[in-house]
Amino acid sequence: MPQLRKDPILSRWVIISTARNQRPSDFKQESSAPDQPELCPFCPGNERYTPPEIVAYREEGTEPNQPGWHTRVIPNRMPVLRVEGQLERRGWAMYDMITGVGAHEIIIETPKHDLDLPDLAPHQIERLLWAYRDRSLDLARDSRFRYILILRNRGVAAGSTVSHPHSQLIATPIVPKRVEEELHGARLYYEYKERCIFCDMIRQELVERKRVVAENRSYVAFEAFASRFPFETWIAPKFHSCSFPLIEEEAVTELAYCLKETLTRLKQVLGARSYNYVLHTAPLPLKHTDSYHWHIEILPKIGRVAGFEWGSGFYINPMLPEDAAETLRGFEIVTPGPSRPAEPQAGVSEASP
Amino acid sequence: MPQLRKDPILSRWVIISTARNQRPSDFKQESSAPDQPELCPFCPGNERYTPPEIVAYREEGTEPNQPGWHTRVIPNRMPVLRVEGQLERRGWAMYDMITGVGAHEIIIETPKHDLDLPDLAPHQIERLLWAYRDRSLDLARDSRFRYILILRNRGVAAGSTVSHPHSQLIATPIVPKRVEEELHGARLYYEYKERCIFCDMIRQELVERKRVVAENRSYVAFEAFASRFPFETWIAPKFHSCSFPLIEEEAVTELAYCLKETLTRLKQVLGARSYNYVLHTAPLPLKHTDSYHWHIEILPKIGRVAGFEWGSGFYINPMLPEDAAETLRGFEIVTPGPSRPAEPQAGVSEASP
Repeated sequence: MPQLRKDPILSRWVIISTARNQRPSDFKQESSAPDQPELCPFCPGNERYTPPEIVAYREEGTEPNQPGWHTRVIPNRMPVLRVEGQLERRGWAMYDMITGVGAHEIIIETPKHDLDLPDLAPHQIERLLWAYRDRSLDLARDSRFRYILILRNRGVAAGSTVSHPHSQLIATPIVPKRVEEELHGARLYYEYKERCIFCDMIRQELVERKRVVAENRSYVAFEAFASRFPFETWIAPKFHSCSFPLIEEEAVTELAYCLKETLTRLKQVLGARSYNYVLHTAPLPLKHTDSYHWHIEILPKIGRVAGFEWGSGFYINPMLPEDAAETLRGFEIVTPGPSRPAEPQAGVSEASP
Repeated sequence: MPQLRKDPILSRWVIISTARNQRPSDFKQESSAPDQPELCPFCPGNERYTPPEIVAYREEGTEPNQPGWHTRVIPNRMPVLRVEGQLERRGWAMYDMITGVGAHEIIIETPKHDLDLPDLAPHQIERLLWAYRDRSLDLARDSRFRYILILRNRGVAAGSTVSHPHSQLIATPIVPKRVEEELHGARLYYEYKERCIFCDMIRQELVERKRVVAENRSYVAFEAFASRFPFETWIAPKFHSCSFPLIEEEAVTELAYCLKETLTRLKQVLGARSYNYVLHTAPLPLKHTDSYHWHIEILPKIGRVAGFEWGSGFYINPMLPEDAAETLRGFEIVTPGPSRPAEPQAGVSEASP
């Protein structure tokens, strides 16, 4: 059973999950991942190599755990937290521990092994976002969980061990420290201003426009003012919304277009470089708050994080975010869809690989 | 001029230092560093390739910026912060910035290109620690600086671009977030208990002994209870001491032995694997505090930090710290010096490469 341990000074939780130790790549230096589609457990036809699916959006008339799916959600075969078991808090002299209960799911984004997320048709990206939402709503009913973290590792340098496009969803019995810090900072601002700090920041970005990368009626993508990495890009709803799983249908369509355009621009500039994205949303239970605002942080893997960053928690970024935004904006892209404000929605069609 | 920018939500400072952009390796994926000792700017005889030295401990009668030194401190040719200029705080609508004043120095640890720190004789490690102290005391007099961060990147994966053994010292106009968090956590504990949390933790480690790796009269090295990485090892004085630069002569000798033993054990288990270490000490101005305790955190580069860690601020460690400690303790090493409690100090002699 994995365990969570708390650093007594920083209140930083660490998952100690020795089951993953069996995966030799965890202890190896970075190397390029072998790409053998015929052995890919996420490809159609290989469904038997994964645990049975939790949910799949599939062609009518096709059977579970058989080909015919568009988007497929499975439990992670090597979960960092386990769904079975009681949530127990224990002390160990001055130290604190929690049993490692949680959920760890994989969302396979497309049957096509070689497509990357920005290559997918907008309606296929919509399916992915619906999977994020549906799984979140389902897991939110489990009272042991305090947070649902949705993330995507793309490329070996980003920690991905399977190249078939997929996202991950991890439900945790604590609120992650980074999110706790955001909640705290946003709450302080709200107490002082009675406004959401994210709403204010987005308004400023839309006025200033120097860091904006993409925009449509409901979403904006921009380089963070205090970017840790070159091309660190955030996507946020322009309207106040604290909780991603409470997203509405029209907003999903708009988000799919904004995500596609943003990742396409990043890909055009950075090529096949590895990146992570993470979706930050309010903790569980699902409820409205005026001070927090969900958003996606996209973190391209550029440069190395060295002792200075680990030791200090502050980062050295060799590029002005304004320059990164200008580079990302500096070309036309095909099929941006409804990515300009108030433009009507374009027709959708599956992209060919 | 570099600038510091503050994330308005997290109060996390980022250094935007575009001068470093000129270093192509900053944008490249990780690759093995070419090792060409004849071109190494840190080797004796190549002193003209570095900025003039700030201080050097050298053989009597040898000239500055000439061979004959044991330990040499130079300004970093590509500093992340610049020593010239006024400290100015500015707003930019809702955002905060500070001019990037600071100091960034390189401490060359030995004239010998191919030695690693644990291979050095204890008295040579002592010289390094004296350099840490002397430079800290000097920079502490500059009222623009709030913090002096001492760190060591070893190996390409740890962010090192020069393989000749060296440490870095970075003086910053703000207290780094990670240290601020430690100070805050330690202060809360002190308010509640009227005891230093580090002292309590060290006492518990010495009683429990499951995570202890090395120990002598004044220092203990142990695996952190909530280690983020396998073999994450902390070294701390057993006696209460908030500020490293106020270290006394005998304690330097003891620390040199403890550091040597700890790094030797890590090297024996992990081979030439990359690692970072960072020295956390109380902020400037130098003064006594009952609640904080300086220490060194050694972070071997094992595994990859993926979206989960970036996104959540909590880490997945595939190894129990107790198992790591047992592995590190599990063999005798040569010349541990005064590394057992109350053992008399051994004679010192320069190790051969």
